Amino acid sequence: MASSREQPSGAVEPIPGQPVVGIVGGGQLARMLAEAAFPLGVHVRLFASPSDEGAAEVIPDVTFGSIDDRDALVAFANTVDVLTFDHENISHEILSEVEANGSPRVAPSVHTLRFSDKAFQRQSFRNAGLPVPPFLVVDPTETSALQQALDFSDQHGRTDDDGKIVLKAARGGYDGRGVWMLTRSELEGFFATYAGAPLVLEPLIDLDIELAVLVARSATGEVATWPVVETVQVNGMCDEVILPAPVDQDLHERAADIAEKASALTESVGVLAIELFVTNGELLINEIAPRVHNSGHVTIEGSATSQFAQHLRAILGWPLGPTDSRAAVAVMRNIVGEHDNVDPRCTQSRALAAIPEAHIHLYGKTVRAERKIGHLTVLGNDQENLQARALHAANLLVESGAI
Amino acid sequence: MASSREQPSGAVEPIPGQPVVGIVGGGQLARMLAEAAFPLGVHVRLFASPSDEGAAEVIPDVTFGSIDDRDALVAFANTVDVLTFDHENISHEILSEVEANGSPRVAPSVHTLRFSDKAFQRQSFRNAGLPVPPFLVVDPTETSALQQALDFSDQHGRTDDDGKIVLKAARGGYDGRGVWMLTRSELEGFFATYAGAPLVLEPLIDLDIELAVLVARSATGEVATWPVVETVQVNGMCDEVILPAPVDQDLHERAADIAEKASALTESVGVLAIELFVTNGELLINEIAPRVHNSGHVTIEGSATSQFAQHLRAILGWPLGPTDSRAAVAVMRNIVGEHDNVDPRCTQSRALAAIPEAHIHLYGKTVRAERKIGHLTVLGNDQENLQARALHAANLLVESGAI
Repeated sequence: MASSREQPSGAVEPIPGQPVVGIVGGGQLARMLAEAAFPLGVHVRLFASPSDEGAAEVIPDVTFGSIDDRDALVAFANTVDVLTFDHENISHEILSEVEANGSPRVAPSVHTLRFSDKAFQRQSFRNAGLPVPPFLVVDPTETSALQQALDFSDQHGRTDDDGKIVLKAARGGYDGRGVWMLTRSELEGFFATYAGAPLVLEPLIDLDIELAVLVARSATGEVATWPVVETVQVNGMCDEVILPAPVDQDLHERAADIAEKASALTESVGVLAIELFVTNGELLINEIAPRVHNSGHVTIEGSATSQFAQHLRAILGWPLGPTDSRAAVAVMRNIVGEHDNVDPRCTQSRALAAIPEAHIHLYGKTVRAERKIGHLTVLGNDQENLQARALHAANLLVESGAI
Repeated sequence: MASSREQPSGAVEPIPGQPVVGIVGGGQLARMLAEAAFPLGVHVRLFASPSDEGAAEVIPDVTFGSIDDRDALVAFANTVDVLTFDHENISHEILSEVEANGSPRVAPSVHTLRFSDKAFQRQSFRNAGLPVPPFLVVDPTETSALQQALDFSDQHGRTDDDGKIVLKAARGGYDGRGVWMLTRSELEGFFATYAGAPLVLEPLIDLDIELAVLVARSATGEVATWPVVETVQVNGMCDEVILPAPVDQDLHERAADIAEKASALTESVGVLAIELFVTNGELLINEIAPRVHNSGHVTIEGSATSQFAQHLRAILGWPLGPTDSRAAVAVMRNIVGEHDNVDPRCTQSRALAAIPEAHIHLYGKTVRAERKIGHLTVLGNDQENLQARALHAANLLVESGAI
């Protein structure tokens, strides 16, 4: 790797030639990237906000700062070989400046990160012939915005539910935030108060099933795609993931093909997650994320190479690992806070008593109702049984009751 | 867990009720224990010597000190729920004092740690009816020591090789250090200069195969035993481990039975490793180690529960996990330094190009010839092919040549 980086202070310094990966953002994705980096001897350097929870508990080499602090971020970048991210909310202006310096590698690149904007993504994918739902981008600052939405509702809205449509903020949403499902009658009230990013309007899709594909693309152009997974969403947040998705081989292949085309189009380096709707047997792209993703946590135990190890290999320009499954079925379930005073860091024992084979991953986050604070994975042969066991374990971790 | 522990300073503090495991000694076993603890939400607190290499690179919460500093060690113990170890060379006097305080739990206990003394171990095991080789404990400070050794050589020495026998220092040896194989003629010279711990004399055993069994015993008395592995030793240092050992079911069961009896006798809490000789189809105990062990690294990817996660579960009094294998065959190979200037932290890329499925684990240690600096594991169906692939990957990590 480049040895031009500067040497900051730190508990244990990397040795010359040892790859140093800088991660911006200190949440669970950074934490799990570090857990994958340690065995490989990759030195992890974290740039986190003091309010971030998750990664700083397990990474000794941390710089605390604001992601809006241009000087701090540029100085941090100068100490690493590759810069990658826990989330996409980093100023593209600052990152472009780092990219222009030529070092470190920024992965994913600013070019790829632009596809996190849902309006840009939908337009680019449609232009490239990738399957997307019907959509309309509306600028809420234009006076015609409401009328455009009413017209879209008339054309694409749910006829049995007052023309209900989906509205998505082009930027800033996650886990169901920034997404609204509104009837025609509710649109006027919504536009009277909404003052956020441009909106992407879409019909409500009748879903057969929701899928996700993870594809890794390395800095050298090598590509590796995992088998397609089923994602079960509750209130817009991923609840459960099943590897492999219980769909036929043809759908697996078509989904992988779309994912690989999206990866090529976005020139992604690292892992790219593509969420897909299946409606009447047809695939439509729902969302993409140019990074490791909740739908890929199942790969930690379920696959020959985890998404986290693969992301590191890809951004470092190393050869990629095999993506075949290590069990007939793997089921991942998110651990979501229920009661502020029931913390899974203190309740694993009762969950492991019931489901001893559960692979528990906790993120070191303060428990709040509805907050994703960990996940767990079980492996086996019988999907329904695994789903029941995963649910039971997840409940035991967050429910009130004797520990 | 007990909440009576004191609160030291640290980057990220454990929350009330979160289990805190203190590890004494900062080598690779501590590093891999931490890697298993992070997903479980177990807070790891390390007591390391400034010269220890391995664990401090990946554990933020570190106290540096000397293991001979009674006050420092007792103060450290007061900040954790359970105290465990990277190695056994800790003063039993200090640990007994901590045990007498009633908190934290010391696991393994001083009672168990006494069995690290090879003389004590052999005598206790023989008294309990466990199968051990013929042996004699000799105190080198006694004037009769040489004559005892000569007599032992006459009775048990190799008749085709000038009465050659094995001499093992009862304490302080590891990885082939503290073990000598000497002919009858060499004994006088040896005793003229040896001034170490008592010696255990044993015959050279004609080996069919060497095995190891890992058994976990929890603080609640629950026991879980992994399938027996074959260990291939070179110069007294473990070179390769094969899971499961290619021996018949009867031998698996007899080995597991011996391991479970040894675990009960030593009252081990956590993982206990038992190394066994097979000679003419009979099992003899070679060594035991009351901790996670090199022969168990293969369980990280090869087993449903790794020895590191299991050790944590056992010492915390949690239910144990399943120990079944996750592949038909798993082969682990140690990565041993060859050239000081070829560091696997800088050469993974070429190893992964040749063997992309290799699971590499590096320990963050300075490379020196003959030093164990990491290991790797491959999973599959064909043992010979896996052995060849593991060897190739390990060589690529340490050989000179273009990267």
